[in-house]
Amino acid sequence: MNATSQTLASSNVTPTSIRVDGARLWQSLMDLAQIGATPKGGVRRLALTDLDRQGRDLVVGWLRDAGASTEIDGAGNVFAVRRGRDDAAPVVLTGSHVDTQPSGGKFDGNYGVLAGLEVLRTLNDAGVVTTKPVGVAIWTNEEGTRFIPTMGGSGAFARVFTLDYLLAQRDIDGISFGEALHSIGYAGSTPVGELAVDAYFEAHIEQGPILEREDRVIGVVTGALGQRWYDCIWTGQDAHAGPTPMEARHDALRGASRMVEAVNAIALRHAPDGRATVGFMQVKPNSRNVIPGQVTMSIDVRHPDDEALARMDRELREASSVIARELRLECELRQVVEFPASHFNVDCVNSVQSAVEMLGLSSRKIVSGAAHDAVYLSRVAPTSMIFVPCKDGISHNEIEDARPEHLEAGANVLLHAMLARAGV
Amino acid sequence: MNATSQTLASSNVTPTSIRVDGARLWQSLMDLAQIGATPKGGVRRLALTDLDRQGRDLVVGWLRDAGASTEIDGAGNVFAVRRGRDDAAPVVLTGSHVDTQPSGGKFDGNYGVLAGLEVLRTLNDAGVVTTKPVGVAIWTNEEGTRFIPTMGGSGAFARVFTLDYLLAQRDIDGISFGEALHSIGYAGSTPVGELAVDAYFEAHIEQGPILEREDRVIGVVTGALGQRWYDCIWTGQDAHAGPTPMEARHDALRGASRMVEAVNAIALRHAPDGRATVGFMQVKPNSRNVIPGQVTMSIDVRHPDDEALARMDRELREASSVIARELRLECELRQVVEFPASHFNVDCVNSVQSAVEMLGLSSRKIVSGAAHDAVYLSRVAPTSMIFVPCKDGISHNEIEDARPEHLEAGANVLLHAMLARAGV
Repeated sequence: MNATSQTLASSNVTPTSIRVDGARLWQSLMDLAQIGATPKGGVRRLALTDLDRQGRDLVVGWLRDAGASTEIDGAGNVFAVRRGRDDAAPVVLTGSHVDTQPSGGKFDGNYGVLAGLEVLRTLNDAGVVTTKPVGVAIWTNEEGTRFIPTMGGSGAFARVFTLDYLLAQRDIDGISFGEALHSIGYAGSTPVGELAVDAYFEAHIEQGPILEREDRVIGVVTGALGQRWYDCIWTGQDAHAGPTPMEARHDALRGASRMVEAVNAIALRHAPDGRATVGFMQVKPNSRNVIPGQVTMSIDVRHPDDEALARMDRELREASSVIARELRLECELRQVVEFPASHFNVDCVNSVQSAVEMLGLSSRKIVSGAAHDAVYLSRVAPTSMIFVPCKDGISHNEIEDARPEHLEAGANVLLHAMLARAGV
Repeated sequence: MNATSQTLASSNVTPTSIRVDGARLWQSLMDLAQIGATPKGGVRRLALTDLDRQGRDLVVGWLRDAGASTEIDGAGNVFAVRRGRDDAAPVVLTGSHVDTQPSGGKFDGNYGVLAGLEVLRTLNDAGVVTTKPVGVAIWTNEEGTRFIPTMGGSGAFARVFTLDYLLAQRDIDGISFGEALHSIGYAGSTPVGELAVDAYFEAHIEQGPILEREDRVIGVVTGALGQRWYDCIWTGQDAHAGPTPMEARHDALRGASRMVEAVNAIALRHAPDGRATVGFMQVKPNSRNVIPGQVTMSIDVRHPDDEALARMDRELREASSVIARELRLECELRQVVEFPASHFNVDCVNSVQSAVEMLGLSSRKIVSGAAHDAVYLSRVAPTSMIFVPCKDGISHNEIEDARPEHLEAGANVLLHAMLARAGV
């Protein structure tokens, strides 16, 4: 606690009247985006690289300058905590990540961390002393592009997998997560998962088009879609494209192509909440004049209701059988990942909703289509999220963009949701 | 002409009674297949590699042992000619190639060359002196896997492209065709395309399932399918698979998948002669949880009638427009290769048919679905081909297989078609 806040703590500042400094938040975002900046205006700052270290060092410096005491756990997660009146109380936590996609943007993850920093700075400026401590987390390797799994730091924190499992993961050059973490100086000594969290709030760009399309400033996030990921392998018979009559073919790409249409049809049958995507396809031998003998494709199916997700699973299996039989192919459909649907804590969702109303912002309830660190945090602490619009719904892309006034509004909602929870 | 043939030339051998030695032909095929043999029983002997040199050296040695005089042209094509009574007459030529696919078989190409060798050996054994010279060609780089274009040697011979163009092609390591040809010692001095060819016959495995399915021993090849090759590029918008509602997507893979079905439907509308294949597909960014923003696919369309091929072209363009409009995508459909349909010479086809009937073999007329050196030769000389069945119609594969009695029958047809043309 610094001198300024001690002075103002006893003044008559009404916490509901305080607001973040949108210009300062924007400047911090732009400054951080310089580290790993790409020519097209994006950011490439992969987890546990030297650029990640530079980004973390910058943000940790800012958090310390804001009077927070920082500690680092064995997974490299950083916790910057601003003391409260009751320092033994669990922390009202916010945060996100500062690693990016290989061709990522300035806002995904970074916004959640720097909105948290802006909350601390704003509390300092206003001299507010909260009852419970408030803190900002930087979770390690959310994107999962250099090391799998995604959301590695928050997953270890929530004991979804062990720290040993996480540290043993290797990148394509054979370097382990543990080695890389050590080399950037972020292998901390705090035990993983032991911080007592009163509640967790995460601000994030929507990464979808809904808020922008409906002209709402805030998405009050009530949960996250359940997800099932599959590998789907079609096997036919390679054959020469010229001499092989159509009726004699066993063309694996025809099976895969019909399955793409079936996957989309299943999602549309479960509209508007169901989603299904084929993002990856590999054709063998992938030669212009050879009928494909094998095609491997991914299927990603999402729904906010686990029972509906199970129905989509059955429909996928039925579709693959019918297509395989009709086209005389083999089809192997193998589920490789399952995230149950997340339902965020009602009190936390209400805290966000109340802040939105107090601030007079347009909003809608929304379910996160993507997974976030908050999804894992919700397993061990009351959690909610705050979404703001991003341009054209685009993220994981260098052209990812968001408007300063929306980022400012989201940070104000974060501030007041945390304040309501932390007490003054 | 050797002593044996001189003696027997004046004897009363009836040429119609002579037959090839099927066991000797089979043994030559098996011996040649040792060079570049793969563990799965196939052959990997890419054009202009040292293995290609070893294969050529072995076969050229056999041809010289059979009394043929050999010359090599500037494209590396080998011509082994057995003298006739009228040595000034154009050569009755056969041949094929000894280069293979990367995972190729023992018979594709090799059979046509060694059937030609077996014809020379049989003529020698029977002491037959033909009126016109007969010869065997080894065409360079038919497969086109290390260097494009395919059918490079025969294409240069037929003046489809210039020798300079051919020699300037480079492999992925930057080595030119000319350098590679020189390094294996097959850069000959004979001018390309100057050999006078009376007629060209090529024996080949069918590379399709028709003969086997109909239990015929010989395919009397009347021509080759016309071909059009296309690149088809679908452009939508990358987006995150989770947060992007189905109705907001511009999924390039949906366009490509519908196009795969359209391509197949177009071929079926032009059954039984029309064929169309998508063999290659590349998805971008090809990530499990990203809606594909761009998909590039190949389309290979074939038909024995050029007007039907033009109709298939129009149907492709129409289908791509409809799909692009419905799915709100961009589609670029670009033709990259066109081979008009080939119609082989009626006299040459009749020579093959007569030989089949004289030998009492089951047969059917057939149109080659694949291109062969014979397709280029047919532009500069009267040409036909002889097909024999291959197991399950499979080629360009290590498991390519053919039955000794079929290979023998095909060589006998070749022998008598050439004899009829060369005269005794």
